[in-house]
Amino acid sequence: MSETQQLAHWIINTRVDIVPDDVRHEARRALVNYLGCALGGAHDEAVTFTLRALGPYAGAPTARILGRIERIDPLHASLLNGISSHVYDYDDTTPKNYMHPSSPVASALFAYASAHSVSGRDFVEAFITGFEAEMRIGNAVYPAHYDAGWHITGTAGVFGAAIAIGKLLQLNEQQMIWTIGLAATQAAGIREMFGSMAKALHPGRAAQNGYASALLGQAGFTAGIHGLEGPRGFCAVQAAQYDLSKITAGLDREYELRSNTYKPFPCGIVNHPTIDGAIQIHDEHHPEPRSIQAVRLRVAPLVMDLCNQTDITQGLQGKFSVYHGAAVGLVRGKAGIQEYTDEAVNDPDIRYVREHTTATGDPSVTEDQAHVEVELTDGRVLSKFVEQSLGNIHRPLSDGQLSAKFLDQAPHHKHALELAWRIDELHEVTPLIHAVTA
Amino acid sequence: MSETQQLAHWIINTRVDIVPDDVRHEARRALVNYLGCALGGAHDEAVTFTLRALGPYAGAPTARILGRIERIDPLHASLLNGISSHVYDYDDTTPKNYMHPSSPVASALFAYASAHSVSGRDFVEAFITGFEAEMRIGNAVYPAHYDAGWHITGTAGVFGAAIAIGKLLQLNEQQMIWTIGLAATQAAGIREMFGSMAKALHPGRAAQNGYASALLGQAGFTAGIHGLEGPRGFCAVQAAQYDLSKITAGLDREYELRSNTYKPFPCGIVNHPTIDGAIQIHDEHHPEPRSIQAVRLRVAPLVMDLCNQTDITQGLQGKFSVYHGAAVGLVRGKAGIQEYTDEAVNDPDIRYVREHTTATGDPSVTEDQAHVEVELTDGRVLSKFVEQSLGNIHRPLSDGQLSAKFLDQAPHHKHALELAWRIDELHEVTPLIHAVTA
Repeated sequence: MSETQQLAHWIINTRVDIVPDDVRHEARRALVNYLGCALGGAHDEAVTFTLRALGPYAGAPTARILGRIERIDPLHASLLNGISSHVYDYDDTTPKNYMHPSSPVASALFAYASAHSVSGRDFVEAFITGFEAEMRIGNAVYPAHYDAGWHITGTAGVFGAAIAIGKLLQLNEQQMIWTIGLAATQAAGIREMFGSMAKALHPGRAAQNGYASALLGQAGFTAGIHGLEGPRGFCAVQAAQYDLSKITAGLDREYELRSNTYKPFPCGIVNHPTIDGAIQIHDEHHPEPRSIQAVRLRVAPLVMDLCNQTDITQGLQGKFSVYHGAAVGLVRGKAGIQEYTDEAVNDPDIRYVREHTTATGDPSVTEDQAHVEVELTDGRVLSKFVEQSLGNIHRPLSDGQLSAKFLDQAPHHKHALELAWRIDELHEVTPLIHAVTA
Repeated sequence: MSETQQLAHWIINTRVDIVPDDVRHEARRALVNYLGCALGGAHDEAVTFTLRALGPYAGAPTARILGRIERIDPLHASLLNGISSHVYDYDDTTPKNYMHPSSPVASALFAYASAHSVSGRDFVEAFITGFEAEMRIGNAVYPAHYDAGWHITGTAGVFGAAIAIGKLLQLNEQQMIWTIGLAATQAAGIREMFGSMAKALHPGRAAQNGYASALLGQAGFTAGIHGLEGPRGFCAVQAAQYDLSKITAGLDREYELRSNTYKPFPCGIVNHPTIDGAIQIHDEHHPEPRSIQAVRLRVAPLVMDLCNQTDITQGLQGKFSVYHGAAVGLVRGKAGIQEYTDEAVNDPDIRYVREHTTATGDPSVTEDQAHVEVELTDGRVLSKFVEQSLGNIHRPLSDGQLSAKFLDQAPHHKHALELAWRIDELHEVTPLIHAVTA
């Protein structure tokens, strides 16, 4: 059996009942984190502009948009959920392939469940199925795929959404194989968009196009049956090297959800150890911004590749600037959503510190580590070595920290938070969706 | 100025008034050919299934679908036009990069003009602008991009649609740069889908997503400004080798429309010389199918790469089988739409000849050439060498042949054909659109 067929066979037959308790809890954690991010981003300009541009073309308003009162069709709801949940770069990340795995899958599922009756059990089953499948596809092409410039959240994410919706639609094996092919041929999103609204379009389109792939597959719209492994299939076309065995390895035995991490800071994850170290220096020494003569960072080389933006004036750009991360940590002792606004990026103190910060890529520093060194005008040098960054797989956010992160973004949604923590027990997901779309 | 910026600058400022007469006539020829194909394919299952799957999610019915009576929103109309115009592989081709250039651009434009008042002049201006731009982008990444497995009609086509709609929307330079970036990050479509309905999805999605890119750019949705030339931009990510200078070379001086060709047969263009030769043998000798002992083809190596399907049972697969092309030419003396149905593929005589046909890739045979050799049971050998295939740039279809091809696909649309030949003189495109959407 080909990898596409094996995967389709697994998707159709897997059941949430066999998923271990810790993995099911990780699914809850992922969904709590996802919902907080979607609520936090729901009124960003990227969402508003999309509604303005595409709303006039949307279909019958049978679905709801997370964090908003407007009603719209389920495909556009998927798009908008994807944008809002990712626009602040605050959603989950799997360090083994740099995906933001929940956004494409959950964005489509919440849109679907806002228009159709879905039990909490089926919702979580579809979520886990889509998550596990897209992660395996991502693993198969990582790192060559990512290194080539693909935004893996968009490219692998479209499979996750397609598979999750296909699972809820109870597609048969042939329909699922077509659905995977249709996802493969719509996989898109390039890293050149980092630092612009278009980055958040990627999980949005992944959710929308994945959802549409399942609808088309259900209707009998045919696709190549070797979407993943064929000589002109997703893996061969989008990765110079790939390992097909990772697509099917350990299905129903090993769970990629266990490798998921949740960001304490709403920006590119490779900046986190630097921010963590800067906050620790702030909390221990409270240096005056103008007393800082120089900040010197030694970071993993990937940081220089992804987050080397210096001449920045917009909030979004700050997410891709390790210099800005160091500056907000040192000046404000925190890096929440308020530290990535246009105002924060142009704050004179933050700008001052940012412009006095330099960084060096050092292959001996891992992507979870950073050396932060602050030289003060009085000659003192404050330094901090972060060995494991807060929020990484070895220092995960606790359930309480995830709840706090949710409420920081959605302070008026305590009831929704309570429902989200027991989503799989809900007879229908509807009350949760109503609580977050009022 | 970057290539993206130069291109955006050109798009905004170019005017149809400076386009030479022969190029304007080629635009008319391309649109006549396009419309015939869209009408011919409008009731294919690929279109019907898409309407069934996605119709329930479509928006207010302000637009029309070519060849159909249903009304729908302009974005879904773009998608459906793209599918119907390409589903029989009968639309135009530019041999220099194997694009089907008109489908993505015209599919979006006809959808737009069915919902908004557009003059013939503005329509043709937008068409030429989108066509010239997408072709240059395709040229820049060809052949590495195509060889890697990308379906260039989808990937470069999304730029053509975005640019054509952006031109009609009169975007400013910044909006156009974002629009190009948004197209770049949605460029998709892989050759693994050849032989399935998903191949026709590619120009459909290109038209729809390109159209949406222009709407988003107009609304201020930001994208990376180096969508084409950036280190993680379209060219670098989707082609191992590329030549950025081709994006801007000869704008307003040289016209890619002059390199457009129109297929006499509704299948992959690399099969055409073989079919041409087979028809010539049929017309000269009228061999009985069961008198054929063996058919031996010597063809360009690319034919073996693209059209080597042998064990086929569906009409769509026949388009990618050089064996089927030889068989229909020899048995029926023609290769029209009726020769690529499920019925024709399973016709016992055609199947018999197809199964007695072998092919060899020969680097000394160009892609416009084929050697066809037929051995009969009585020992006679009939052979034909095709040096320039009908429909190629050196043996173009005449205007009369294009009209005949249109009417073969759309026998009841003589009035539309007459309007299409003078589309640029129409005060509004509306009467033409009404004539093809009744």
